[in-house]
Amino acid sequence: MNAPTSHDHLVPVITPRTIPAAFMEALKQRFADNCSTAQIVREHHGRDESAFTAVPPPVAVVFAQSSHDVADAVALAAQHHVPVIPFGVGSSLEGHLLAVQGGISIDVGRMNKILSINADDLTVTVQAGVTRKQLNDEIKSTGLFFPIDPGADATIGGMCATRASGTNAVRYGTMRENVLALEVVTSSGQVIRTGSRAKKSSAGYDLTRLMVGSEGTLGVITEITLRLYPLPEAVLAAVCSFPSIEAAVRTTISTIQMGVPIARVELIDANAVRMVNAYAKLGLAESPMLLMEFHGSPNGVKEQAETVQEIANDNGGQSFEWATTPEERTRLWTARHNAYYAGIQSKPGCRAISTDTCVPISRLADCLLDSVAEADASGIPYFLVGHVGDGNFHFGYLIDPNNAQERETAETLNHQLVQRALRLEGTCTGEHGIGLHKMDFLVSEAGEAAVDMMRTIKRALDPHNIMNPGKIFSY
Amino acid sequence: MNAPTSHDHLVPVITPRTIPAAFMEALKQRFADNCSTAQIVREHHGRDESAFTAVPPPVAVVFAQSSHDVADAVALAAQHHVPVIPFGVGSSLEGHLLAVQGGISIDVGRMNKILSINADDLTVTVQAGVTRKQLNDEIKSTGLFFPIDPGADATIGGMCATRASGTNAVRYGTMRENVLALEVVTSSGQVIRTGSRAKKSSAGYDLTRLMVGSEGTLGVITEITLRLYPLPEAVLAAVCSFPSIEAAVRTTISTIQMGVPIARVELIDANAVRMVNAYAKLGLAESPMLLMEFHGSPNGVKEQAETVQEIANDNGGQSFEWATTPEERTRLWTARHNAYYAGIQSKPGCRAISTDTCVPISRLADCLLDSVAEADASGIPYFLVGHVGDGNFHFGYLIDPNNAQERETAETLNHQLVQRALRLEGTCTGEHGIGLHKMDFLVSEAGEAAVDMMRTIKRALDPHNIMNPGKIFSY
Repeated sequence: MNAPTSHDHLVPVITPRTIPAAFMEALKQRFADNCSTAQIVREHHGRDESAFTAVPPPVAVVFAQSSHDVADAVALAAQHHVPVIPFGVGSSLEGHLLAVQGGISIDVGRMNKILSINADDLTVTVQAGVTRKQLNDEIKSTGLFFPIDPGADATIGGMCATRASGTNAVRYGTMRENVLALEVVTSSGQVIRTGSRAKKSSAGYDLTRLMVGSEGTLGVITEITLRLYPLPEAVLAAVCSFPSIEAAVRTTISTIQMGVPIARVELIDANAVRMVNAYAKLGLAESPMLLMEFHGSPNGVKEQAETVQEIANDNGGQSFEWATTPEERTRLWTARHNAYYAGIQSKPGCRAISTDTCVPISRLADCLLDSVAEADASGIPYFLVGHVGDGNFHFGYLIDPNNAQERETAETLNHQLVQRALRLEGTCTGEHGIGLHKMDFLVSEAGEAAVDMMRTIKRALDPHNIMNPGKIFSY
Repeated sequence: MNAPTSHDHLVPVITPRTIPAAFMEALKQRFADNCSTAQIVREHHGRDESAFTAVPPPVAVVFAQSSHDVADAVALAAQHHVPVIPFGVGSSLEGHLLAVQGGISIDVGRMNKILSINADDLTVTVQAGVTRKQLNDEIKSTGLFFPIDPGADATIGGMCATRASGTNAVRYGTMRENVLALEVVTSSGQVIRTGSRAKKSSAGYDLTRLMVGSEGTLGVITEITLRLYPLPEAVLAAVCSFPSIEAAVRTTISTIQMGVPIARVELIDANAVRMVNAYAKLGLAESPMLLMEFHGSPNGVKEQAETVQEIANDNGGQSFEWATTPEERTRLWTARHNAYYAGIQSKPGCRAISTDTCVPISRLADCLLDSVAEADASGIPYFLVGHVGDGNFHFGYLIDPNNAQERETAETLNHQLVQRALRLEGTCTGEHGIGLHKMDFLVSEAGEAAVDMMRTIKRALDPHNIMNPGKIFSY
């Protein structure tokens, strides 16, 4: 199968495989009511938050209750060479869930138990269907928290699969740094564990990190052991408006280069502020702003915040405002997390094409400002938000999915942005993954030889190409 | 090939392969004076710091000057199915460098250039033969440093290969967290890059972390892009003696559980202090002690240190002493880093069998104290040092390598320790790797199915089994 070319990025290549009747019978027999073939259920599981045109949905959805269920479903699929697509809450953004080669969806959403909290070790083990908010609710009494927060209330399994991160990654790292070990169902339906609860290990190949970011193409993640962190003694949030995006970006770059251990530093452009104001009636000043958060001791956060306030002032930052109560902080961060939905709401019937480049911090202004100029010139409505402390930002180009011209324009903007990020030694995806959408970009970024190495690993571990086939690279 | 059984751990199974004359001729022709077959050079490259009995050394040593040299040497080896063993400074501890299947050594020690310092991005790119001390010397003027410090002045390439860490890992992580990207020569002699300079990425499989810790069995690491950190504004070191190992360990556990961002917390038992005193005439109090270091703002380090001092006092800690000048700090840390050599010197002609278990912090006292009791009862002289903030510690059992009884006793102690660590959800190796020595332990720890997955990856990426064969697992 060939990868889609850059000009039909949002029209998936579909190469469905024959699903043997014997497979469907065996599946129904094994899973009974936990296997659905209802059209609406299948359609719900055959799409994600991306702007891809619809493809035929999976032929069935298995609602797994346990790792054993997942293993049995995969073993059956392996026997009949049927594709398997793991499903969490469906919040992925690059077409990961589309059944481009047919097959079944395995929904792990009912595997939502916290299996063990080891507060003394700052670790927790959860089933793959636990969502990040559920996790933080259930561990609240321990005084610990799990920091990784992609915008959506994604499942921990899905966050592992895409190597997700979010607003706190600048301080706490991404899923790459915060997964200690996994339980994984392999392509033959075998259950393996990839690590222990030790904080570090040199015991053989790092299967944990091979699985993190593999987007369901090497196995189905069923359990995850995560690192937790003590809730900081003091938390201080601040918001600061800037006369230009450049001023906000320069403030961020200096903050990072000075080594301030800032916990969050998020850029929201004037468009995004306007959309969020309309969506949630917030009354924020409609200019580019940075949302920041500092974690530490009471003195420590004060020191950090004062340093950043000085940097912001030097860059023309206005009205540095503090949010000290949990309620004020929640209001600010809810605004940030709602930016995507606020963007969608701002143009009825639209879909967002979300970019996801990430560049070294010294290249951030170069990468971002030229891309803003291009987006402004295009006439496509957009918003811009970013985990700028990591050099990662997202344009959301708001397009009418039925308007080929708009799609093409947005794809061209994205293409130019990615090429620019790669020239600046960055990556085409900081946290969303490759999915269907960025397969060409992966080749540009990593080179044919490195993608060949990935393909060799895939073929060795999934010889019948049943694990979320057609994603990341052509088989 | 079968893995060695647990009772002949220090007597390697040797299965040398035939080296074609045509290969040797081609190698000499390509590398001329940069290829040595002198006995003394070969012997130097055929051993490491482990206590293994000598095996026949590699048939030749190639001194690579460039990635191109490495690629050519591996391509030749691939053509003739000749094993290839990468060599840095020879400081590994688990038999990684022994030519158990014959073949050649590729010494990357002359590839010792810093290729680019990107101070604004807190990254540096180096050749594999740069050592950690050289790196920190050469970047001193930038105000940045690289924190990972295994005892030896190892090469960065070697540190990647074993997923090394050291005293600062409790704060800054291990090689796993601090390598951004690699250049690697594959088993066919192709050169690939595994990542960009972006701080995070979701672009395909994490080849970087697959290579980190692969011990030369998947490719030869030739270039490394690393994360750097701003030198802390303030550094405070302290040493505290304790009435017992348990008191020191309890202090450590509480410090970590309270979330103090301590930069170093090292245990040195009374034996080790005695040996270090004799080796370097230091006059330290000969009781168990913690060496600590705090990094941050002047106020921040004071806060951290006061918190830990209180915890230490609660646990009977005596004479909490500060080292505020760089000279005093260097003196303390040199003592710590010399512990291994001081141990070896304490018993003429001995070798050290170094253990390397790592357990969740809540299990540290259980794991450590029972093992101390066993070591004391055995009559084998030993020292104990540990990166206890990570739950990682090393017994150095000092044995006469020609005394089968002592070797057996030390191996039995190590075996019991590893079994205990695994029961406590830990790992057989926190930072030294598997090599030849821990192949059985890896199976106990990861399970046959996970080791099979590693083997499947190895076979796919190295179909002729030429990359450091016979290490980590049987092929």
